[in-house]
Amino acid sequence: MTVPKTMAAAVLVGPETIEVREVKTPAPGPEDVLIRVESCAVCSSDVSLMKNPWPGQPPYGSFIPGHEYSGEVAAVGKTVDEVSIGDRVAVEVHFGCTRCDNCRVGHYTACLNWGDEKKGHRANGMTTNGGFAQYVVNHISTVHRIPDRVHYDEASLVTNLGCVLYGFETFGGYIIGDRVAVIGEGPLGLISVQVAKLLGAETVYLFGIDEKKLQVGKTLGADRIVDVRQNDTAEYIMRETNGRGVEIAIEASGSKAGLRAAVTIPRWMGKILLLGIPEGLADVDFHNLARGNKSLYTVRGEGWTNCRRGVSLLRQKRVDLSALVTHTFPLSRIDDAFRTHIEKLDGAIKVVVKPHEKTGV
Amino acid sequence: MTVPKTMAAAVLVGPETIEVREVKTPAPGPEDVLIRVESCAVCSSDVSLMKNPWPGQPPYGSFIPGHEYSGEVAAVGKTVDEVSIGDRVAVEVHFGCTRCDNCRVGHYTACLNWGDEKKGHRANGMTTNGGFAQYVVNHISTVHRIPDRVHYDEASLVTNLGCVLYGFETFGGYIIGDRVAVIGEGPLGLISVQVAKLLGAETVYLFGIDEKKLQVGKTLGADRIVDVRQNDTAEYIMRETNGRGVEIAIEASGSKAGLRAAVTIPRWMGKILLLGIPEGLADVDFHNLARGNKSLYTVRGEGWTNCRRGVSLLRQKRVDLSALVTHTFPLSRIDDAFRTHIEKLDGAIKVVVKPHEKTGV
Amino acid sequence: MTVPKTMAAAVLVGPETIEVREVKTPAPGPEDVLIRVESCAVCSSDVSLMKNPWPGQPPYGSFIPGHEYSGEVAAVGKTVDEVSIGDRVAVEVHFGCTRCDNCRVGHYTACLNWGDEKKGHRANGMTTNGGFAQYVVNHISTVHRIPDRVHYDEASLVTNLGCVLYGFETFGGYIIGDRVAVIGEGPLGLISVQVAKLLGAETVYLFGIDEKKLQVGKTLGADRIVDVRQNDTAEYIMRETNGRGVEIAIEASGSKAGLRAAVTIPRWMGKILLLGIPEGLADVDFHNLARGNKSLYTVRGEGWTNCRRGVSLLRQKRVDLSALVTHTFPLSRIDDAFRTHIEKLDGAIKVVVKPHEKTGV
Amino acid sequence: MTVPKTMAAAVLVGPETIEVREVKTPAPGPEDVLIRVESCAVCSSDVSLMKNPWPGQPPYGSFIPGHEYSGEVAAVGKTVDEVSIGDRVAVEVHFGCTRCDNCRVGHYTACLNWGDEKKGHRANGMTTNGGFAQYVVNHISTVHRIPDRVHYDEASLVTNLGCVLYGFETFGGYIIGDRVAVIGEGPLGLISVQVAKLLGAETVYLFGIDEKKLQVGKTLGADRIVDVRQNDTAEYIMRETNGRGVEIAIEASGSKAGLRAAVTIPRWMGKILLLGIPEGLADVDFHNLARGNKSLYTVRGEGWTNCRRGVSLLRQKRVDLSALVTHTFPLSRIDDAFRTHIEKLDGAIKVVVKPHEKTGV
Repeated sequence: MTVPKTMAAAVLVGPETIEVREVKTPAPGPEDVLIRVESCAVCSSDVSLMKNPWPGQPPYGSFIPGHEYSGEVAAVGKTVDEVSIGDRVAVEVHFGCTRCDNCRVGHYTACLNWGDEKKGHRANGMTTNGGFAQYVVNHISTVHRIPDRVHYDEASLVTNLGCVLYGFETFGGYIIGDRVAVIGEGPLGLISVQVAKLLGAETVYLFGIDEKKLQVGKTLGADRIVDVRQNDTAEYIMRETNGRGVEIAIEASGSKAGLRAAVTIPRWMGKILLLGIPEGLADVDFHNLARGNKSLYTVRGEGWTNCRRGVSLLRQKRVDLSALVTHTFPLSRIDDAFRTHIEKLDGAIKVVVKPHEKTGV
Repeated sequence: MTVPKTMAAAVLVGPETIEVREVKTPAPGPEDVLIRVESCAVCSSDVSLMKNPWPGQPPYGSFIPGHEYSGEVAAVGKTVDEVSIGDRVAVEVHFGCTRCDNCRVGHYTACLNWGDEKKGHRANGMTTNGGFAQYVVNHISTVHRIPDRVHYDEASLVTNLGCVLYGFETFGGYIIGDRVAVIGEGPLGLISVQVAKLLGAETVYLFGIDEKKLQVGKTLGADRIVDVRQNDTAEYIMRETNGRGVEIAIEASGSKAGLRAAVTIPRWMGKILLLGIPEGLADVDFHNLARGNKSLYTVRGEGWTNCRRGVSLLRQKRVDLSALVTHTFPLSRIDDAFRTHIEKLDGAIKVVVKPHEKTGV
Repeated sequence: MTVPKTMAAAVLVGPETIEVREVKTPAPGPEDVLIRVESCAVCSSDVSLMKNPWPGQPPYGSFIPGHEYSGEVAAVGKTVDEVSIGDRVAVEVHFGCTRCDNCRVGHYTACLNWGDEKKGHRANGMTTNGGFAQYVVNHISTVHRIPDRVHYDEASLVTNLGCVLYGFETFGGYIIGDRVAVIGEGPLGLISVQVAKLLGAETVYLFGIDEKKLQVGKTLGADRIVDVRQNDTAEYIMRETNGRGVEIAIEASGSKAGLRAAVTIPRWMGKILLLGIPEGLADVDFHNLARGNKSLYTVRGEGWTNCRRGVSLLRQKRVDLSALVTHTFPLSRIDDAFRTHIEKLDGAIKVVVKPHEKTGV
Repeated sequence: MTVPKTMAAAVLVGPETIEVREVKTPAPGPEDVLIRVESCAVCSSDVSLMKNPWPGQPPYGSFIPGHEYSGEVAAVGKTVDEVSIGDRVAVEVHFGCTRCDNCRVGHYTACLNWGDEKKGHRANGMTTNGGFAQYVVNHISTVHRIPDRVHYDEASLVTNLGCVLYGFETFGGYIIGDRVAVIGEGPLGLISVQVAKLLGAETVYLFGIDEKKLQVGKTLGADRIVDVRQNDTAEYIMRETNGRGVEIAIEASGSKAGLRAAVTIPRWMGKILLLGIPEGLADVDFHNLARGNKSLYTVRGEGWTNCRRGVSLLRQKRVDLSALVTHTFPLSRIDDAFRTHIEKLDGAIKVVVKPHEKTGV
């Protein structure tokens, strides 16, 4: 594969201002892989860091965002034999410093040297360059081969899947026969529904407000879909469970109302997983939480090699991420991609940018 | 439902000697359920305790074996509202003393007051009367409702399923994308294959010697079936995994050769689950085990409410236990049932006794 | 030991109204122990349920509160051989129903049949009679022998210790070399300091407002004591830890300010244990919690046999609960005992009632 | 600190043949630390790899063994700010590749790219040069500052302590009130005694054959010391525990007899930790293991940052490793050091080599 000297890339040049520029194609280091990006999905984190730079983010004019991508291996560093040029791959975002107390025990998504590239930390699309570009460099540990039949668009969502799986692993992940309530019908909620079902949950409830997406949730395995504008989440669950509650509540809406409900609907000894994150302070019933001996878990990224696990699920056809890809745009129309994502235009769930295509679908 | 005063029951009257007698129908205590037994499967534990009485086993002439059964609720104790007369149910074997250090933290299958009925311990078919009879008494905590469409024969294998699930829970149970090698193509091996696949294992290997049962394993989800008379288990796995080994090895053959292989085939940090148990001392490579930082888990019965979880899988049609029921016999032919089980006649996997039928299939 | 037919007992006759009456001495059932109560400590839960009855609480006029007590075995049920008449014992509060999904796996303090005595649940001093009386009946599983040299007053605090230990076990309990911040200098906070130190925490911070109790904390092992009226908890911790935070935060103050701080002071991947419980909703920074991949644990009572563990620590002289007993009163002065507890009179930490003494100290 | 161009080092020149030579002083890479070695302890692993080279071991004539050492920071790589020149430090052995499935989740002592230095793996004294030299290079993640008052000889045993702590963490590490039986009175056994006691074990049994070392064990906290030439381990434990067994058995003798006993002495649901490793196959009662629902854990090195935890215990004066250092030798007498270790001359427990001293003690 011939790698051109320069490439098109979406550079963040100021707050909420992206410009597609021709920049130098990056070169992989000895432990790295150069990836020809085929698909890079838009994430709400992108929106957030484009508005207010995150810690460790490179300065305006020198930073390419985008952390959910897939593509083809274009070159490999001299120590890399895990993948070869031409391999189709999905990625993880995070490579930790390998030397802080968190990285040392495998919590690389929560590296304590976050943003310190000198010490080895990288979070592509956050603290180092990402995938809204024709090429990107990844540490080999963040690269996973995907089968031919998995579309690049679907594969660009592997970080979403890895994030949800990491959440399930965090609270134990053994849920056969349990009841799971998922709050929020966005990408993480819809993936949570699938993961809960495949792991053997008996009944999966999906709460949301968008009827169309709730229907997607039903197709993906939700046993009950509930419009929260017509039903109070907590009342609904208590009615369904004889007043006891579910074993697992997953908050994936990012709303304060969702969070408040998530804390109250588990039964005593139940667990709460936060995938969505409300901004600012949230008023929550800690008395209910504590009296019920409940525990609460969070995720930061796609930890503990759960992208590896997620890729396996794709390989096994056990999850369907393609149903979540509702829009694609060429890199030249990245502004439209972001607008579609932010305003949830036309039923948008996930919007994917295609750096090498002239036109999207 | 009218409960007759007496019932037919298979009474252990001496070593390996069972007699079908007419005995008094038992009455449930306040926390108990009287079950009209429809199906009771033969287990190798039955064979063992009929040969040499187990600790806590009632004396010859007063003991009815059989611990894998299902049936219909015929009467309930005065505190029981969890099930009603006429409900179809599957059971667990163990109700612990509720007062020893193990029971207190939920390890009721390993009750330290085993066999001490005065202190509350019961293991039906082991230390208290079991299901090779037309009626049996169970503590309410060991009774689970099953859906109409699940056949009683299939439901009698819930303890097997619960035992396998307990094993998976014991070592963590989160195996998405992992490789699992199952050694032994008997009931526990065939169930392990199904559970490993449903929990997302990427590749499941099944090792055995009976071509027909290996084929059943393939139908139930095994990705590779291997005849160990033609392949060395360890060599096969090392070839398949570039010399590294699988994440999980499950020993379900009860043979020393199986055990020896199970210890060597996991990769470093891998896990071994023992479902089968060899008699006597077994020569094992502990150097390999320890150098590989492997850990080894065992099960004693169907602990931690995994029968509840197993019933849920039946309800969800996520496992198929009916494929394992190869033979049924009326209670009057229980000797034939045991012979078929012990000698594995006619491809026997699980043999079920029907206390209320005149003829088997 | 001669057990009198009647005994003095503090009966809850109305909201916040207790009367010491002569009532019938209870008799132990077959699995029970009759305890001659020597010491029964006042707990804030007593104050709460005397104000507004808790679920499952017996009606006014028929209920004796008090759940933290110790005494001498006065009689045993016919199946009991674990203890003998004359043994000195401490107790647990909870005996679960043994049949719900929580009890079945050992979570008896969170029994789903809470208050349903018919189904077997008991929480002495909450849903069944307690220890503000000369005699009380306990299920044998909730009784632990104590050595001669442990004073009954100290032993009455074993439930407090069991509760703290349960909390540590809940989040893993392996903290060698970690930094632990304890918020709240009441009984649970002071016990947490001791447990954290004995388990090998490197630095234990104790935050509070009562200088005298903070000094007690120092004596019991706190490396740093901090007056929160002069220091902001979060700022203090960040200054001490180079802006990273502690591995473990324990909230034992029950205040919203304490809770808010507890969520922010752990480092990424850190853990929060709630021992105190604020009333009503609490405004908490969930963004910080989730972005830091922190997890949050709660306790309900003294679960998982941690009273057994706690008694062992007393036996080993590894903790000192006697330092927490600041006041004792005879049963006749139980109103004074409660007033001393509620108003924290005279530096009160724990106030103990002595059912068989004429005068307190 | 001036670092000389050459240094004295013990080079493995053939099977069981070491020569002290003057070689080039190594230079640290950007993430490394150069350590002036003050103390390097002899380990049985050294004896093993000097006899038969381990996987990944450099060829004769180019390899310096020694993996248990401490010293002073002599130089730091350009990204290192965690330690400074002149700091006193202890070390870990292992730095993993950071890219295999084990390293990625923090199991760096079980790196699947073991011995592949190109991919980043290092195990100093095993696959890369070690501490039987005046200087050695360590990755910064394997270096821990020690307090002034901890002697270098004691600090050289931090890897032993880290190994034992890793073992405890592996099986959960929460053992308050439990009974622990330690088999083997060598360094790992004696450290296990201390760790078990500090974590709150109620009774710690130490089994061995060397009366003097058993007495050291008593000084270090063992409640009972037992000469296995006069007592059968299993019989002794069963007598002590009313036939039930201990909660935790730790095998630290490396003998087959020890291993056999370790499997049988835990009570049902008990745990076995293997620190010692027998050579070849070992005959073990797996029937007992499985029927008792026991689980078995192993360690490979000082994983999961337990050297950090161990250094904290030294800082807190919670363990005493100095009691284990019985002999020291200058580097020039390394042959004597090995002989003393191998033949356990003169009550040898741990033998330490001093690269910068002219004479030992």
